[in-house]
Amino acid sequence: MARLHNYYAGPAALPLEALEAAREELLDFQGSGVSVMETSHRSKEYDEVHNETISLVKELMGLGDNYKVLLLQGGASLQFAMVPMNLLGPDASADYLLTGSWSQKAIKEAKIIGTARIAANTEQDGVFTSIPKQGQLDLDPKAAYCHITSNNTIFGTQWRSFPDTGAVPLVGDMSSDILSRKFDPTPFGIIYAGAQKNLGPAGLAVVIVRKDILEKCNKGLPTLLSYNTHADKNSLFNTPPSFTIYMVNKVLNWVKGRGGIEAMEKENTQKAELIYGTIDGSNGFYKNTIALEDRSQMNVVFRLTTEELEKKFVADGLAAGFLGIKGHRSVGGIRVSIYNANTLDSVKDVVAFMKEFMAKNG
Amino acid sequence: MARLHNYYAGPAALPLEALEAAREELLDFQGSGVSVMETSHRSKEYDEVHNETISLVKELMGLGDNYKVLLLQGGASLQFAMVPMNLLGPDASADYLLTGSWSQKAIKEAKIIGTARIAANTEQDGVFTSIPKQGQLDLDPKAAYCHITSNNTIFGTQWRSFPDTGAVPLVGDMSSDILSRKFDPTPFGIIYAGAQKNLGPAGLAVVIVRKDILEKCNKGLPTLLSYNTHADKNSLFNTPPSFTIYMVNKVLNWVKGRGGIEAMEKENTQKAELIYGTIDGSNGFYKNTIALEDRSQMNVVFRLTTEELEKKFVADGLAAGFLGIKGHRSVGGIRVSIYNANTLDSVKDVVAFMKEFMAKNG
Repeated sequence: MARLHNYYAGPAALPLEALEAAREELLDFQGSGVSVMETSHRSKEYDEVHNETISLVKELMGLGDNYKVLLLQGGASLQFAMVPMNLLGPDASADYLLTGSWSQKAIKEAKIIGTARIAANTEQDGVFTSIPKQGQLDLDPKAAYCHITSNNTIFGTQWRSFPDTGAVPLVGDMSSDILSRKFDPTPFGIIYAGAQKNLGPAGLAVVIVRKDILEKCNKGLPTLLSYNTHADKNSLFNTPPSFTIYMVNKVLNWVKGRGGIEAMEKENTQKAELIYGTIDGSNGFYKNTIALEDRSQMNVVFRLTTEELEKKFVADGLAAGFLGIKGHRSVGGIRVSIYNANTLDSVKDVVAFMKEFMAKNG
Repeated sequence: MARLHNYYAGPAALPLEALEAAREELLDFQGSGVSVMETSHRSKEYDEVHNETISLVKELMGLGDNYKVLLLQGGASLQFAMVPMNLLGPDASADYLLTGSWSQKAIKEAKIIGTARIAANTEQDGVFTSIPKQGQLDLDPKAAYCHITSNNTIFGTQWRSFPDTGAVPLVGDMSSDILSRKFDPTPFGIIYAGAQKNLGPAGLAVVIVRKDILEKCNKGLPTLLSYNTHADKNSLFNTPPSFTIYMVNKVLNWVKGRGGIEAMEKENTQKAELIYGTIDGSNGFYKNTIALEDRSQMNVVFRLTTEELEKKFVADGLAAGFLGIKGHRSVGGIRVSIYNANTLDSVKDVVAFMKEFMAKNG
């Protein structure tokens, strides 16, 4: 069948060019005579992929040499535990800013391992429709770190600018908006992201750790759970998920070829404005209740007037070629996930479909 | 270029049929309109891949319903830590049978976490050329478990039959020989294997846990590091490495289509006999010093009379189309890794090359 418009929240759409390039050399990687899946992680061919991937993350994100880029297994979910395992000692405490389901999971893990304070919480009646303002933060100036979830895939909110935590290093779960916009990494001690939204297939977390943070990490951890193990061995202490890293490499090269993060951000803003504009201009047919300044540019969530109409929207959408637009099972409604690989043309088609659906059912 | 004979120790050769099938549907997975890399891990399409993969492991290995098959990230190296984290309490001790580099790493992790006894050690002058006999085991009848490395990729030894540990459950790292031979799983409480030899690409560990062991696992662990998390959620607690699992699915179906483990074992025995026969019939031109009954059927290691000749063997071998035959950097020499996907015909070509090389250089 023809390829659909893929609006899954993750694993999500990949650039067609990346998939085509992988298909082209799937049986013979760059003339090596074997697939990249079959080559040793100690081979010259794989080594180039591995190191270029790390360099591209640094280059695209504008990271200085005081940051190490680690390529780890276990997804962001394992980072929920690795961050406190590495950074929380018996006398330390960390601040967490609670803005949705993923922050909740991160807090749960931190509390298993050490002391975690909730320094802000935007929950109201079980949902999270805003990002806290600077004045709403109850920050501990002695915290080991302050953890945020930069974008909330389920509730559709996003930290459009980051909180000021003074000397306390920020730790950011950027799984769903890494590489989508330019930002100053300086306040961040750690940035981590599961690959399966803006970076590549599932099965990898990109973990960026500032060197002064590495020096403070706890000793005596299980080897694989220590950031220093992977920093010291360039993420080759054990066999890395080499094919997944290879796909991330293809995606990063695609981002670079398209003009880098600035170009991504510009298009992401256009895409988001198109959909939010359609919602806001629908006279209440489509509703988004997120505070305007906190709306996510990655996951646009909205409701229709009845659940029945939402079901019809999802079904008609699929019939029209739009996959994965059903809201997360915990909140219902509609969610259109517009990551880097979702093209502006495709989003224009979404908007056309939304208008047509409204005309027919309004 | 033409595909080479791939003798890497891991990541290693995959069945050509599995790679071709993946290539065929890389942009459109079973008519879903998206790549399997891009589909949600909650989609119907992925769900079928996931569940069939688990069923095939059980079917091919003859595992009863008292075993759970988990699909985890972090490779076997993370299992070195997860086994003791889950099974060692403050008053417990585990036995480890030390037969090579990988057992050493497993022991190192266990000692970080709890008490690990070395119940056998076949090291002599820094190398491991044999597997302990039953009478050489100093077993603790109260051990929480007894850990073995079923095949030693670096030294080329293999437990051809498993030790009797009475009521103490065996824990087996079978990363390099899973699915290569039939065995009775009954004494095993846990079997784990990194995927990148006999199962698929790197980035996955298949972990098989007996239900009575699950019931004994420690509580209060970080969520991702608890076997019960993954057993309770069918390895879908967090996003699984879906493309890697998909490739493992292809490999498992290939094994089944070729006649299952019995057929693999028969061919693996033939392949090993061909190479060992050539070594043993070479009048000392090729030398393998492993005790005959402990020789690995997966990794045939041997030496030539000088390091210079070994270098020439590797170089001439590569020129003749044989990739990855250099021994592990820690021991030198030659290693021919003959996993399930290395065909009998290809091994016949290796043997022909060995004979020709000997004729020219003997």
